[in-house]
Amino acid sequence: MAVHRYNFPTEIHFGPGARKLLPAKLKEFGIRRALLVSDKGVAGQPFFDELLRLSGAAAVYAELSGNPVESHVHAALEAWRDAACDGIVALGGGAAIDVAKAVAVLAGHKGCLFAYAEGVPGQKPVSGPVPPVVALPTTAGTGSEVGRSAVISEDGSHVKRIVFSPKLMPRAALLDPELTVGLPPGVTAATGMDAVTHLVESYITAGDYNPLCDGVALEGLRLAARSLKRCVAKPRDLAARGDMMNAALMGAAAFQKGLGATHSCAHALSTVCDMHHGLANGIMIDFVMAFNKPVCREKFKVMAQVVGAKELVGWLTGLKRSLGIPRGLAKAGVRKEHLPRLVDVAVADPCHQLNPRPVRRKDFEALFSKALRA
Amino acid sequence: MAVHRYNFPTEIHFGPGARKLLPAKLKEFGIRRALLVSDKGVAGQPFFDELLRLSGAAAVYAELSGNPVESHVHAALEAWRDAACDGIVALGGGAAIDVAKAVAVLAGHKGCLFAYAEGVPGQKPVSGPVPPVVALPTTAGTGSEVGRSAVISEDGSHVKRIVFSPKLMPRAALLDPELTVGLPPGVTAATGMDAVTHLVESYITAGDYNPLCDGVALEGLRLAARSLKRCVAKPRDLAARGDMMNAALMGAAAFQKGLGATHSCAHALSTVCDMHHGLANGIMIDFVMAFNKPVCREKFKVMAQVVGAKELVGWLTGLKRSLGIPRGLAKAGVRKEHLPRLVDVAVADPCHQLNPRPVRRKDFEALFSKALRA
Repeated sequence: MAVHRYNFPTEIHFGPGARKLLPAKLKEFGIRRALLVSDKGVAGQPFFDELLRLSGAAAVYAELSGNPVESHVHAALEAWRDAACDGIVALGGGAAIDVAKAVAVLAGHKGCLFAYAEGVPGQKPVSGPVPPVVALPTTAGTGSEVGRSAVISEDGSHVKRIVFSPKLMPRAALLDPELTVGLPPGVTAATGMDAVTHLVESYITAGDYNPLCDGVALEGLRLAARSLKRCVAKPRDLAARGDMMNAALMGAAAFQKGLGATHSCAHALSTVCDMHHGLANGIMIDFVMAFNKPVCREKFKVMAQVVGAKELVGWLTGLKRSLGIPRGLAKAGVRKEHLPRLVDVAVADPCHQLNPRPVRRKDFEALFSKALRA
Repeated sequence: MAVHRYNFPTEIHFGPGARKLLPAKLKEFGIRRALLVSDKGVAGQPFFDELLRLSGAAAVYAELSGNPVESHVHAALEAWRDAACDGIVALGGGAAIDVAKAVAVLAGHKGCLFAYAEGVPGQKPVSGPVPPVVALPTTAGTGSEVGRSAVISEDGSHVKRIVFSPKLMPRAALLDPELTVGLPPGVTAATGMDAVTHLVESYITAGDYNPLCDGVALEGLRLAARSLKRCVAKPRDLAARGDMMNAALMGAAAFQKGLGATHSCAHALSTVCDMHHGLANGIMIDFVMAFNKPVCREKFKVMAQVVGAKELVGWLTGLKRSLGIPRGLAKAGVRKEHLPRLVDVAVADPCHQLNPRPVRRKDFEALFSKALRA
């Protein structure tokens, strides 16, 4: 007997200008002394001052750049404590939102962050109170604004650790496409491929049954097929940017079911080569889907129908090309000598355990080798 | 500027045997003295005693039959007060779940139920505390187990009143297909068509934009297309019954966007002819969709693709036929002299205000006349 659980609790407000709801939401959630968590890139954007004002922040931590590491969390936590904050506004991409969630965990839980990470020996549960987080994403990819996890790397090894709990879901997400129109094409493409990877992998995952997530994943894929190329070609197209913000959150809402082997490859590429997560997913997805195809024929047909293509793997390859995502790993700086370590990290990564087709060490070797030669 | 809000908070547990989670859920929500609300038909089912035991109910109200009216709510509220209950278990179809929700409102709100109904002069808000409801549906149609409204009729006039608030959502829904295998084919067909109507109308509604709901509606329609006929032909098929339970909840999750004119027709048929809500939707849906088609060509194509048919309206008509739903209203006991009142009630009903094609009085006249002649 399998009994499956599903719900989508985050309150989402979507539309140009949604950021202006921030003061009302802070009031509603009883946040009087917000910590604003952001990153260096966002702090240089024209909208940053407006958001600083709207948040009425008692403290700001905006020192992030690249993949977030544990020391970022500790620095932000210090700002939280110094200003006696009572809630968090996360403004940025997945890095800022994940750091905000990690600070929220440590605000009410003793000890080191990674004591709460998935799969560590003696893992502690997130059982205490977690202060409210309001997320304003500035990219359309990770969907962390509705996700249940914070992905933070170790400072030294760059190994990614995942803290997971439904309590990590932000109380509200304000999706304002005006915050994404300034994203450079390369970031738009890479984060967009991250969303596409979430949508595809959650739909075919061997994880828990969840028909709401299936529907959300397919509809998100329809939006991405309609609008991702347009976001790169016409960066100021608000309708396309809005579609991609929705596609991103839908990917994250859907992947509560589970993900797959593309993510294990991408986690390895980030750990070993410090590659951007979305770019890594974007390069690997068609290789992994070609590998999965024999066991997912029916679901691949449904996805092809939704994106309006004859066949899914070919569509993904074409999408990469039109977005300027490299066909293979060599152009992204990966070399043959990285292979053994990439394979080691991917094999150890938990995501592929829910891949619809079991992935053995020799399969990862073949996948990375193909992607390196392409 | 439009800013749209969406979330799906109800915790759903789905699978054969999900009912056995009830004691754990009651404990989790702090319910020690549950009121069990059910209906006469369910009280005669073999599983009723098991659920009575699992709920450890301090009080039982199981006097419902047919569409629920205000006096049912007052009788159940008396049982709630006499036993000093602190939470509600709703076991049944939409009637039992809606009465449970209405009792939950009155438990923490003064005055008459309909003071909180949509659109009444001086409508009061559901601003106070609402005790937790755990829903165990025994039909697959209304989806009230995840819905935000309670539909209760006036005792005398049978006019349907809708109490709406996100606070009315049950805290948890336990979807156990074993509770539906005993449903007679006629009820399976009528409640199933109710779910189909929710899925179709919410997808095309002119109501708020919500891409998660769009995806949920389409996926629910896929499940219904796959399994509704099978539930009628093979009543003990648990997989098909499970698909329809999901389709029903997905219909209700999706219609937070809004519904359309089929529902206004059905509300009129219930009010004027005391017709079962699902049967009324089932009879009217293809007539209303033929009317809507000119303004929804793209969405109709997507839905036809999802159900695997050439064209949506023809598919709906064929589905009705194969389920034993009457083609038109005459076979369901409606007569020509009912027409003026049907039109009056439908025009006054709020649902059609979100129909994708505006529906004037003469349109309702034409729809009912066509359905009566068919």
